[in-house]
Amino acid sequence: MSVDDWRRKIDEIDRRLVELLNERSRCVVEIGRIKRVTGEALYQPDREKQVLDAVVEENPGPLPDAAIRRLFERILDEARSVERAVMHHGDGKKEG
Amino acid sequence: MSVDDWRRKIDEIDRRLVELLNERSRCVVEIGRIKRVTGEALYQPDREKQVLDAVVEENPGPLPDAAIRRLFERILDEARSVERAVMHHGDGKKEG
Repeated sequence: MSVDDWRRKIDEIDRRLVELLNERSRCVVEIGRIKRVTGEALYQPDREKQVLDAVVEENPGPLPDAAIRRLFERILDEARSVERAVMHHGDGKKEG
Repeated sequence: MSVDDWRRKIDEIDRRLVELLNERSRCVVEIGRIKRVTGEALYQPDREKQVLDAVVEENPGPLPDAAIRRLFERILDEARSVERAVMHHGDGKKEG
């Protein structure tokens, strides 16, 4: 396979990543809606630790564990922003 | 659905994300091996721009486009590290 063939494969993977990241985000919106009603805290460090431990545990490589951790720290950052938007405005609409 | 139900759904999505990120990384390893032989440059800003433009274009939300861009900037950072490791050591082995 040529560099272009591998890149086409990467483009497909990226499309699935975009879908999954948005699917994850929709779950976060739902959790934000529930927390809005129950008054539960937005930031739950125990849950974030659990997420990070789980993804590192499941990581088969070749990505180093530290890379997976950094990637999911960013994913959790973005999730917190989505949840904050929902708790303040009631929706998790795409803002641009 | 309760917060716990949504979290279980997120855990499943995270497992698929870990798989896809590693699958992406395996493609990057292959590209690194080819570039090692051909002497092609590691950092190709045009290709990175193309990746970022494509994922933002495909983003249906609710994640904001800026969030998708930040996430993929991180993914590209990690890809560059993997490719660098391959070009210097000939493999993309998990380093911890």
